[in-house]
Amino acid sequence: MQHSYRALAQQLQGEIARGERRVGERMPSVREGSGQFAVSASTMVRCYRYLEMHGWVDARPKSGVYVADWKARPTAQPAAAAQPAAAAQPTLAPPASMAFERFVSLQERMAELYALTSQPLHMGLHLANAAPQWYPTEALARIGQRLLRSHPDALGVYPTGTGWPAFKQALVQYLGAKGLELAADDLLVTNGSTEALAVALRATTQPGDSVAVESPAYFGLFQLLDSLGLKAVEVPCVQDQGMSLEALEYALEHNSSIRAVVLMPGFQNPLGYAMSDSHKRRLLKLIERFGTVLVEDDTFADLSPYQPTAQPVKAWDRLGQVVYCGSFSKSLAPAFRLGWVSGGRYHARIAALKLSHSLVTPLWEQMVLAQYLASGELAPHLRRLRERLAANVVPVLASVRQHFPLDCQISNAGNWWLWVEAAPQVDTLAVLRQSVRQGIAFTPGVLFSASGKYSHCMRMTVAQPFGPTMDAALATIGGLLREAV
Amino acid sequence: MQHSYRALAQQLQGEIARGERRVGERMPSVREGSGQFAVSASTMVRCYRYLEMHGWVDARPKSGVYVADWKARPTAQPAAAAQPAAAAQPTLAPPASMAFERFVSLQERMAELYALTSQPLHMGLHLANAAPQWYPTEALARIGQRLLRSHPDALGVYPTGTGWPAFKQALVQYLGAKGLELAADDLLVTNGSTEALAVALRATTQPGDSVAVESPAYFGLFQLLDSLGLKAVEVPCVQDQGMSLEALEYALEHNSSIRAVVLMPGFQNPLGYAMSDSHKRRLLKLIERFGTVLVEDDTFADLSPYQPTAQPVKAWDRLGQVVYCGSFSKSLAPAFRLGWVSGGRYHARIAALKLSHSLVTPLWEQMVLAQYLASGELAPHLRRLRERLAANVVPVLASVRQHFPLDCQISNAGNWWLWVEAAPQVDTLAVLRQSVRQGIAFTPGVLFSASGKYSHCMRMTVAQPFGPTMDAALATIGGLLREAV
Repeated sequence: MQHSYRALAQQLQGEIARGERRVGERMPSVREGSGQFAVSASTMVRCYRYLEMHGWVDARPKSGVYVADWKARPTAQPAAAAQPAAAAQPTLAPPASMAFERFVSLQERMAELYALTSQPLHMGLHLANAAPQWYPTEALARIGQRLLRSHPDALGVYPTGTGWPAFKQALVQYLGAKGLELAADDLLVTNGSTEALAVALRATTQPGDSVAVESPAYFGLFQLLDSLGLKAVEVPCVQDQGMSLEALEYALEHNSSIRAVVLMPGFQNPLGYAMSDSHKRRLLKLIERFGTVLVEDDTFADLSPYQPTAQPVKAWDRLGQVVYCGSFSKSLAPAFRLGWVSGGRYHARIAALKLSHSLVTPLWEQMVLAQYLASGELAPHLRRLRERLAANVVPVLASVRQHFPLDCQISNAGNWWLWVEAAPQVDTLAVLRQSVRQGIAFTPGVLFSASGKYSHCMRMTVAQPFGPTMDAALATIGGLLREAV
Repeated sequence: MQHSYRALAQQLQGEIARGERRVGERMPSVREGSGQFAVSASTMVRCYRYLEMHGWVDARPKSGVYVADWKARPTAQPAAAAQPAAAAQPTLAPPASMAFERFVSLQERMAELYALTSQPLHMGLHLANAAPQWYPTEALARIGQRLLRSHPDALGVYPTGTGWPAFKQALVQYLGAKGLELAADDLLVTNGSTEALAVALRATTQPGDSVAVESPAYFGLFQLLDSLGLKAVEVPCVQDQGMSLEALEYALEHNSSIRAVVLMPGFQNPLGYAMSDSHKRRLLKLIERFGTVLVEDDTFADLSPYQPTAQPVKAWDRLGQVVYCGSFSKSLAPAFRLGWVSGGRYHARIAALKLSHSLVTPLWEQMVLAQYLASGELAPHLRRLRERLAANVVPVLASVRQHFPLDCQISNAGNWWLWVEAAPQVDTLAVLRQSVRQGIAFTPGVLFSASGKYSHCMRMTVAQPFGPTMDAALATIGGLLREAV
């Protein structure tokens, strides 16, 4: 049932590819199509959006959907990555200058977001964090004060090594409960998971290589890839499973420049998916079969409403092909910027790169978290936080459904985000430019792809207490979306 | 007035060079000299230390100061510094794989150092830090406790932007006092100066480019260059001026792959040199003439015994060709890992790279230092620290001279380090392997060059209170050096 739009899309795609529907020909309208193919209107819409995303049709505002000139642009398609035909072509390493141009353009989009959201906001839904009061800041501050009172001299110690030993030991316990059998030496403490991902990718790729990523994916990942001269191969997601393993297999078979796969199997940003154990094992087999590397970003896993205690892919990794990255920045202590990486076969190289790039990670935060983790307070905190999120999302969803246009598809992404697909012609970046004038920000969809897809989508972080202010903000966004159609 | 010791030193140096004071002749004692030359005793001491550092006199403990055998060692000076011939060869960009091999080999040397020095040590002279008790840890801890008491919620805030505004404002003041006219927007807070250097180099070079560095230079720099696929062009130093500008000019003329020059003009690691203002201006003119970039690492400048308040090169930079990097990790708060970069024309690119690699820098440390800097306590702390270092180095030098083989050339590198040149056949890495067995570590010279030079040299950080333990440790190292010949 959930895949009926894909089945229909495949059927139509075949008809187009065989020439039964010719370039420029008008496709059935949504109403006509849903009658003709016996599907719901929303399935019809999703089917067209999917075909459009993959370059088979063009949607012309206020006119209709037409067969695209798909033969004329086998490579020009921005969404090239997700397109089987394009994935089949071995990608050539772009000259560094080209990569830099792409980087600049992505940077410009990011810079616009930062400029837009740096003005005073009374409702910022654009970052990936929860409300400060939902973190155990009092407990952390108490530990911190005690440490400063008893060990002020620790501030004068020049930190060395790969992390504060007590913190690493606490991490060993914490990750052990997830099924990861690691020793302290298998762990490297980083400045958040961003640095963990950065050194993981630098250790396993060379500039010019390709990296397979989920589509849509976290915008920081595209920034990172471009800054390293790496090409993002965007692999579509299946609705409740994250990255499509069929599409990944196809991409790996046809694009030998893919050196690494970056995934968030525990809780995908921005869609909130959690991958099942059987899919995780299949994924690992693919990684092993193609001799590539899985960079598993588990940053949000503890927040997943589905299976917060599920094992990461890393738990099944016997060959050291999985580089496991995590962080407490979203789940426990945003200001601390503490992450970690366990690099499997690549660990020594990763540790050397971290050392050469930023030496060590600040000590005090590690000392505080070592004590916090030892106190056993983490699990109850996470449970409370997940309960709060689950309760909070109910009125949030009600408000969004009330205020947003009817043709918006609203997905609850794990109680943490909402992922909204507006009508195809809506430019959510333009909507954002208007909403920030009223002190309201969200993340425009264009940032979740390196190729400009999802420009009609948006991510809203709803991990903060619902109330009249958020309700009013959602009403404002809804109004702007209505005007934008 | 502050340079009177330099003027006197020049006078005496001239007398020695002209043969008016002969090799082995006893110089006036401090008391005699201060009367004879009408200067204070401390000026006399500084003058002799300066002459000693530059090889014109030898101070013999409990005996006096004697004219050194300066003619017999015209090149053996602090660091048989890279032969011009080496710099003269145009360097070709190595293929990425070659660079990686070099990186691995450098990494192996580093890994050996880390392995060697990770065992319990009772006298570690291998890092670049001072004794913890020489930092104002009590004051920092007090501020930190107060902040945690009054603003525990700050720990729940997800930091954004390029640094905590109050810290950046305090930095603006602090750097303004050095003659840098910067606005908060010109500054980016980093994880120590290591990250500042890393993003500065990534923003101004491409893999395969060359970077001119001082010889000898800080080993972390070689690690960084190799990890970025950059080739180090090692330019010799002139005894009291840091990098030879003649050699640099020659290198820039003959090697068009040099894209950046990394220097520590304020206080060079490991030689302790400070560049004069006139040389700084000449350096900047060279940079501008060749259209290259100066990455100025000012990390140790506040610790310089010669001119701690001198202006950085950046103060004269009108074209934005100087990327200025600094840190409080050595001078104020080792555990905080707080650095900064002001990137001139390259600032936006640098900020984007920092963002994509590690997002933001932890908040709490920035909040603490913002208050500490506002308190006006930094300048008195630095003065006290420099005085401590100056007083401490006297018995340290006496001990080294007593215990080390006579053919060791010992340079006092700014009261912070000693740079020792042993007889050419001595392998200081082999000596280190033995000394760590007795719990004593220093930095072997082989790490201060990418090409394996200085294997007979060593750096010892002596910024910790001299006492029987250090005396015994120096005696142990001296004994091992004697055996190594």
